[in-house]
Amino acid sequence: MTATAANDYFTESHSVEAVNGRMGKATDPRLAHVMARLVAHLHAFIKDVGLTQEEWATAIDFLTRTGQICDANRQEFILLSDVLGVSMLVDAINNRRPSGATENTVLGPFHVEGVPKYPMGANISQDGGRETCLFQGQVKDLDGIPLEGVRIDVWSDNEDGFYDVQQPGTQPIHNNRGVFVTGPDGRYWFKGIKPVSYPIPDDGPVGQMLGKLGRHPFRPAHMHFIVSREGFETVVTHSFVAGDDYLQSDAVFGVKQSLIAPFEPVAGGDTKWLSTFDFVLNKVAAE
Amino acid sequence: MTATAANDYFTESHSVEAVNGRMGKATDPRLAHVMARLVAHLHAFIKDVGLTQEEWATAIDFLTRTGQICDANRQEFILLSDVLGVSMLVDAINNRRPSGATENTVLGPFHVEGVPKYPMGANISQDGGRETCLFQGQVKDLDGIPLEGVRIDVWSDNEDGFYDVQQPGTQPIHNNRGVFVTGPDGRYWFKGIKPVSYPIPDDGPVGQMLGKLGRHPFRPAHMHFIVSREGFETVVTHSFVAGDDYLQSDAVFGVKQSLIAPFEPVAGGDTKWLSTFDFVLNKVAAE
Repeated sequence: MTATAANDYFTESHSVEAVNGRMGKATDPRLAHVMARLVAHLHAFIKDVGLTQEEWATAIDFLTRTGQICDANRQEFILLSDVLGVSMLVDAINNRRPSGATENTVLGPFHVEGVPKYPMGANISQDGGRETCLFQGQVKDLDGIPLEGVRIDVWSDNEDGFYDVQQPGTQPIHNNRGVFVTGPDGRYWFKGIKPVSYPIPDDGPVGQMLGKLGRHPFRPAHMHFIVSREGFETVVTHSFVAGDDYLQSDAVFGVKQSLIAPFEPVAGGDTKWLSTFDFVLNKVAAE
Repeated sequence: MTATAANDYFTESHSVEAVNGRMGKATDPRLAHVMARLVAHLHAFIKDVGLTQEEWATAIDFLTRTGQICDANRQEFILLSDVLGVSMLVDAINNRRPSGATENTVLGPFHVEGVPKYPMGANISQDGGRETCLFQGQVKDLDGIPLEGVRIDVWSDNEDGFYDVQQPGTQPIHNNRGVFVTGPDGRYWFKGIKPVSYPIPDDGPVGQMLGKLGRHPFRPAHMHFIVSREGFETVVTHSFVAGDDYLQSDAVFGVKQSLIAPFEPVAGGDTKWLSTFDFVLNKVAAE
């Protein structure tokens, strides 16, 4: 009744096989593969560092507090994913594009659906930001053909470094947000403010972790874009303000060389700054 | 001002270096090492399976729900650690002992401090469990010398498969719990009930995960022991009921061959069952 080979049981040396051997045969094959590899890598990490029981308890406490601070307006696990480079890595793996096509970066937690569509040239800054800026550019395909009917969804922080959704009741609704659609020339232009750098929310477990790792919580100034048209891969990206102090130390690793945009002072113009940034879309592969 | 080499920024191929390169030079060396290896193994996992953005979102949601179900009486992240074999692996790494010394297994979430100390022979079952059992054995060192003054802290479920703390107000306080101290012969004996197998709490995210993996939530029947004396390594372990249906599929991987104990029927005795289980303690290494 108990004539069982000893190594049917869990041991340090075959811990991975013991856990993965328990998986049911009817498990979804992709789930089974992902979980089996997760267990293998997780056990390899623990063995690699010789994790102590005190460190294990610290990790349990950290994960618990990270879950408990989440609510409708705060997602601390996404923040954790961001600061560990996981969000950027998953984006990179799933959005490999040919050279010349505009690169993605993190979506971030502040995108909003249902933002008004404006005519080209509209001003999305509703709270009187002083560093006014004209954003402009052209959307083309990889052959250089201008693309008509491209939806351009944009959003940025205000001059205090906060998105509207971070200050409900203080900022106007849809402040520094707008949707534009290109005409036959593929061009876009709208007014806003030159974005400013800001810290990610750092009063929770992730902020405490950054502090212990000697890392600051700042992101370099950027304008968000989602650029989409049927038949083309959607680009989720930012244009980063050239010269920003945090370009080489973005807390969430979002910066790519190709995404750094000029912000040029304009003498005597309608706005103080001009930023030109073009998009190149990659066709969706044929079915 | 922006004359920056492209590979100072995050890329798929050097994602680990990008993240770990950000660590401050004053970071505690052990923390820096553990975090750097965590990032390396985590990114390796994501690249290995080619994690999709939908899978990433599922993971964020799972971790968030796991954190949010935790409260003073429930620790779902420990449960997650248990069912992934992490708890047993950390225990194994931190409690390597010479052959012949009693092995550890998981502490579990139901240990309680401040339990009464009883004289040998006391009955810890306060709710009239019918499968009465005498637990007995001897505590020795690796040279076979009986150990006096050893503290033996024991706890088990009741015959319905619940620990007292799972049913406050229903079970008597400290039902199926007790502390005993050995005399010069190193022997212990007390009365209780033959433990029964039971499911770990499976109405939360971890239970849902086990379901998708085709795994049951049951643990084989066991009596918990913490056996401690100054100068010796504390043993945190169970004795498992030989012949239990779940010995080879413990949901938390706690079973070791050496921890399976006989539970013999006793004809006409004071109790229905007799279980003999000895302990061998390993001296703490000299300073």
